[in-house]
Amino acid sequence: MKLLITLTTLSFIFIGCENKKASISPEQTASSTEKSMLDGNIIDLTHTFSKESVYWVTAKEFKLDTVAFGETDKGYFYSANNFETAEHGGTHIDAPIHFAANAQSLDEIPLTRLIGQGIKIDVSEKAKNNRDYQVSVEDFTNWEKENGTIPEDAIVLLETGFSKFYPNKKEYLGTDERGNDAVQKLHFPGLLPEAATWLVENRKIKSIGLDTASIDYGQSTHFQSHVILLSENIPAFENVANLDKLPVKGFQIIALPMKIKGGSGGPLRIIAIVPDDLKL
Amino acid sequence: MKLLITLTTLSFIFIGCENKKASISPEQTASSTEKSMLDGNIIDLTHTFSKESVYWVTAKEFKLDTVAFGETDKGYFYSANNFETAEHGGTHIDAPIHFAANAQSLDEIPLTRLIGQGIKIDVSEKAKNNRDYQVSVEDFTNWEKENGTIPEDAIVLLETGFSKFYPNKKEYLGTDERGNDAVQKLHFPGLLPEAATWLVENRKIKSIGLDTASIDYGQSTHFQSHVILLSENIPAFENVANLDKLPVKGFQIIALPMKIKGGSGGPLRIIAIVPDDLKL
Repeated sequence: MKLLITLTTLSFIFIGCENKKASISPEQTASSTEKSMLDGNIIDLTHTFSKESVYWVTAKEFKLDTVAFGETDKGYFYSANNFETAEHGGTHIDAPIHFAANAQSLDEIPLTRLIGQGIKIDVSEKAKNNRDYQVSVEDFTNWEKENGTIPEDAIVLLETGFSKFYPNKKEYLGTDERGNDAVQKLHFPGLLPEAATWLVENRKIKSIGLDTASIDYGQSTHFQSHVILLSENIPAFENVANLDKLPVKGFQIIALPMKIKGGSGGPLRIIAIVPDDLKL
Repeated sequence: MKLLITLTTLSFIFIGCENKKASISPEQTASSTEKSMLDGNIIDLTHTFSKESVYWVTAKEFKLDTVAFGETDKGYFYSANNFETAEHGGTHIDAPIHFAANAQSLDEIPLTRLIGQGIKIDVSEKAKNNRDYQVSVEDFTNWEKENGTIPEDAIVLLETGFSKFYPNKKEYLGTDERGNDAVQKLHFPGLLPEAATWLVENRKIKSIGLDTASIDYGQSTHFQSHVILLSENIPAFENVANLDKLPVKGFQIIALPMKIKGGSGGPLRIIAIVPDDLKL
């Protein structure tokens, strides 16, 4: 009897405190926005991994090798693949140890860091005419004037608008060349180191993400925003998709990376749950 | 004002309909069980990927290559790795196309299939003395006698107890040999094809998972349970961890795989949210 009461309570939680049955059909087809039992929409913030995926110009790109595809001699169909990749490419997470010695590796990041209330700072208008735009302290304080103080334990997402260029490397990264000489040709927005410091010293956030290839802008040489954030065990999500489908606040983020022992980062599946009654 | 009301509603959803603030500190360390803002515990059902990870005896194993680890000449620390792997190894998902032509590939699986109410069928007592145990229709109907009909759109988890052997291949798979000749030496529990058929024809589930290397038992030669389930676009989670930490029902599952275009499967991060007041 106790269990039955508990289950009723749980249903309450997951359908928004209304006594109705969640009416989700698993037969619906995949899309970037799907209905969830959380009485909201699931938005997939993840780019698909393929040979088109965007990687750092010096990093090993994603490669899928077909092992089997077709009917077997026993009469059933079978397909399977192998793949190779750098940890940092496509939609992925930077674990703290990527730029901070003795900080957490990918498997050591607490799940509580990766699940929570999201907010979005939209700087896409500023980045439209400036590929080297860096999100500033003023962008955060302006957001706060409209929306109140960045909540404690928020997951902060920066929308530069560059996701619409993905996976066109020339438009997204600033160059479609590869190798060491291409690094200086990278031009895409990021987070100003001073703004990273402001976040770390004045607010308490769980994690941060953006829709470009790096939390430091393309022209960075010392990756200071990485160092500042990761040294505080604040992971960064990079090459995030579909931020234009999110409101500025009031949504939940669930970001689950591949659990690589000792990993400095890795492939990330990141989704948002946006309540039905929260419009853009 | 409308937004503020909406946010209050959302907080309600996520803290279990009690008007209190979630007190989650992101500073807590990683463990298999963590506190979540869902007023419950997050349980990580994922084995860590490493060279120890368990793969099918004929599949390419996980391999991590260090690209960088240490201080750079610019004065900051930097670490990065590449990795190679079969799609099917460690804690992973079988996409429908793994055993069903024209069925969904990994990137096509709707997220609604992967997030939802979980139930657990515990057959670990039966599998203890029978490595070749196959979960039967009777196991499901016995569960239903105790707990009611398997809910529509449930995510069904089968606990064989074999997770405790992971990653010891001899104990977990039945052999630590590799290659084609090792296939016939595989001995671990799975799901009886008749029980897969019963599920598909009599119940409506979203997805299924278990704590062994395959939804078909080790001695299977035609992988019929795979074919039956995947043909209905019901994905299977394999090598799932920590099922012993779950109650038999009343929890939520969030299973987010790497989003590989055309993938037949891939690395999976799978977690459960168990309400605080739901004891084992």
